[in-house]
Amino acid sequence: MTAQKLVSEGLGTALLVCAVVGSGIMADRLTADTAVALLANTAATVAALFMLISIFGPVSGAQFNPVVTLVFTLRGEMARGLAAAYVGAQVVGGVVGTWAAHAMFDLPIVQLSQTIRTGPSQWLAEGVASFALLLAILGAIHARANVAAVVACVIAAAYWFTASTSFANPAVTFARALTDTFAGIRPIDAPMFIVAQVVGAVAAMAVGGWLFNPPK
Amino acid sequence: MTAQKLVSEGLGTALLVCAVVGSGIMADRLTADTAVALLANTAATVAALFMLISIFGPVSGAQFNPVVTLVFTLRGEMARGLAAAYVGAQVVGGVVGTWAAHAMFDLPIVQLSQTIRTGPSQWLAEGVASFALLLAILGAIHARANVAAVVACVIAAAYWFTASTSFANPAVTFARALTDTFAGIRPIDAPMFIVAQVVGAVAAMAVGGWLFNPPK
Amino acid sequence: MTAQKLVSEGLGTALLVCAVVGSGIMADRLTADTAVALLANTAATVAALFMLISIFGPVSGAQFNPVVTLVFTLRGEMARGLAAAYVGAQVVGGVVGTWAAHAMFDLPIVQLSQTIRTGPSQWLAEGVASFALLLAILGAIHARANVAAVVACVIAAAYWFTASTSFANPAVTFARALTDTFAGIRPIDAPMFIVAQVVGAVAAMAVGGWLFNPPK
Amino acid sequence: MTAQKLVSEGLGTALLVCAVVGSGIMADRLTADTAVALLANTAATVAALFMLISIFGPVSGAQFNPVVTLVFTLRGEMARGLAAAYVGAQVVGGVVGTWAAHAMFDLPIVQLSQTIRTGPSQWLAEGVASFALLLAILGAIHARANVAAVVACVIAAAYWFTASTSFANPAVTFARALTDTFAGIRPIDAPMFIVAQVVGAVAAMAVGGWLFNPPK
Repeated sequence: MTAQKLVSEGLGTALLVCAVVGSGIMADRLTADTAVALLANTAATVAALFMLISIFGPVSGAQFNPVVTLVFTLRGEMARGLAAAYVGAQVVGGVVGTWAAHAMFDLPIVQLSQTIRTGPSQWLAEGVASFALLLAILGAIHARANVAAVVACVIAAAYWFTASTSFANPAVTFARALTDTFAGIRPIDAPMFIVAQVVGAVAAMAVGGWLFNPPK
Repeated sequence: MTAQKLVSEGLGTALLVCAVVGSGIMADRLTADTAVALLANTAATVAALFMLISIFGPVSGAQFNPVVTLVFTLRGEMARGLAAAYVGAQVVGGVVGTWAAHAMFDLPIVQLSQTIRTGPSQWLAEGVASFALLLAILGAIHARANVAAVVACVIAAAYWFTASTSFANPAVTFARALTDTFAGIRPIDAPMFIVAQVVGAVAAMAVGGWLFNPPK
Repeated sequence: MTAQKLVSEGLGTALLVCAVVGSGIMADRLTADTAVALLANTAATVAALFMLISIFGPVSGAQFNPVVTLVFTLRGEMARGLAAAYVGAQVVGGVVGTWAAHAMFDLPIVQLSQTIRTGPSQWLAEGVASFALLLAILGAIHARANVAAVVACVIAAAYWFTASTSFANPAVTFARALTDTFAGIRPIDAPMFIVAQVVGAVAAMAVGGWLFNPPK
Repeated sequence: MTAQKLVSEGLGTALLVCAVVGSGIMADRLTADTAVALLANTAATVAALFMLISIFGPVSGAQFNPVVTLVFTLRGEMARGLAAAYVGAQVVGGVVGTWAAHAMFDLPIVQLSQTIRTGPSQWLAEGVASFALLLAILGAIHARANVAAVVACVIAAAYWFTASTSFANPAVTFARALTDTFAGIRPIDAPMFIVAQVVGAVAAMAVGGWLFNPPK
């Protein structure tokens, strides 16, 4: 069962990143209106998320995101060894996803982004986005709501209401550093994004734990 | 439990307003086509609403809106003291949401809107929008439908079919008076919007009570 | 209970037409790109439909459409007297909806459309759209699917895949003849649309009855 | 029951192709922005898919796609004779759908596409899209998720993240070779698309069988 779980996390993250990066390339080619491009990028990302969480949820929990794995581990709901393997699968999956998108769009496979995404307001945005994402996950579990729909919606909103377009995921951030297209981020800017994501996620764990009074 | 309820109302309203104001700023920066900007603003608002009502519903009822709180109080389903505290939390949350959006987009935190939104047709629009919102809430509860989905849909429609883009919420109206961006409203225009919202909501309470024959 | 049913049909059709006409006016004002306008018009219509069917379904069946009422009557699931009253409520509701949209957008209340919509390919389109709508309704009931979601989706698709943008509803067609805005249709063109809608709906009744083998 | 199944597959595929081709024609006429056109095309396709799978699922399984039929046959869940009849109904339905779209938009009924869609990156894209589609179907069945929603979402994402806009269906590919409009594909390019679709689907069957451990 562990093999299935790791393939589920890796393949799911690969398809998610492939959707994020690929739809960014496609949209960028088809329009000069950046808002239309971001709408298309949002639609593709949200649809992919809903689909992937729906089908991989029963296999591996469909985390696809190291800060999600971190929070479940800190809450004592996941063993540390498995968590480390999850994060490895997510990171590898994300890179494969970026490269698959490049291959499908006839671009050089190996790239590094030159898109500058830095500064306190961007970091605040990543913190807020990751806070909202984790709060949504913990809240949806507590409310027995459709987690796939709730997560898709929080990302849809965060693509637009955060100045950073809401990466909110270290594995996706790493993978997006490897593409010099619409969805890219300069490698040197990635670490602070990841720091902000961890801070936001841990804050949501604290607030969510108190708010949603989770069942033991 | 009361503390959790009030944080739920405050945090939920903050995230809702942050999504409304932030996505307006983002969309306005990315496109010159106002309809594309409003489509993005609609998508972000609707996704945030669905997510927030899904996760905060079991905690506080996920009202996020003083006229919703008013109607439930008038129907005798909520104590007056708690209702007053809810409204306070909603108003404070809304202001925090506007300010958080400004911080994320590197704008001055404290602003006043200069966007004129006034006149009988705008007031009629707010009345109709608030009537539709409350009718949707009472009807969805009666039909045991998914309240989060129904409310998200009524707001999506009302963003487009009302001349005012459907504020339909006094706390959100107050918070939007504090931003001189896409989603703003001149402070002097806010009171009549709020009057129209109360009138529309109370009318929906009357019609809805008769139509949906609520269980005692 | 009959009074509630008729108000439900009338008020639901009014809000539906108000969403269709109002969002058309709004979109037309905000963009020069007709596809963007139609996307906004589609989003508002679909959201309104989902909401209205969800809340009025348990009250009156949420038909809002004379050809739907006709089919249920021909299938023997509705008394003729009630059906006639339903159609009356739908037609009156539709007119009120158009007028409410005009009032909210500061336009003359009473108008006649000058938009030409005629010719065999448009009539074929109306027949196909009405066929698809009724097939969707009968199929969703048979499959115990979410009727509100299925109907919203068939209209979303038909707005784009039919050359007529899919009126598929005699009450809405009549109401849209009374607005000289984005959603209008010349009064002289309305009767053939309605004929095509009846033909398409009755064809769907025949095919659907055979396909879905309805339980007695 | 077999007659109903075949009509369900044929009529469903016809309406699906009609939505794909028709919305492409409509969007192309209304805008000069190709991304806006593809967004409209995506919305119409996704809405049609959700509706058609919801209503025809209980009748025939709502496959509408020869590679889906192939995979279920290889898994031993479908008799070969019925499978062959399904594929025939899907192909005939697809052609009727294209022709119906032409008729509604006043275009010559019989056409051949001149849109070049070829090359290794396009074939890779078709393989990935078909892999994702079949994985989504097998995963959704395993997870007891809403198959109509999951399939609609995987196609929404794949329209944007694959360089080919994701045909992922031999019957639809054949039907789209018969239209020289937005959604077309040169007949000479169709066979390699179909080969890639079969490869992707069979790969998904292997991976999905292992991942989702299907009940016997």
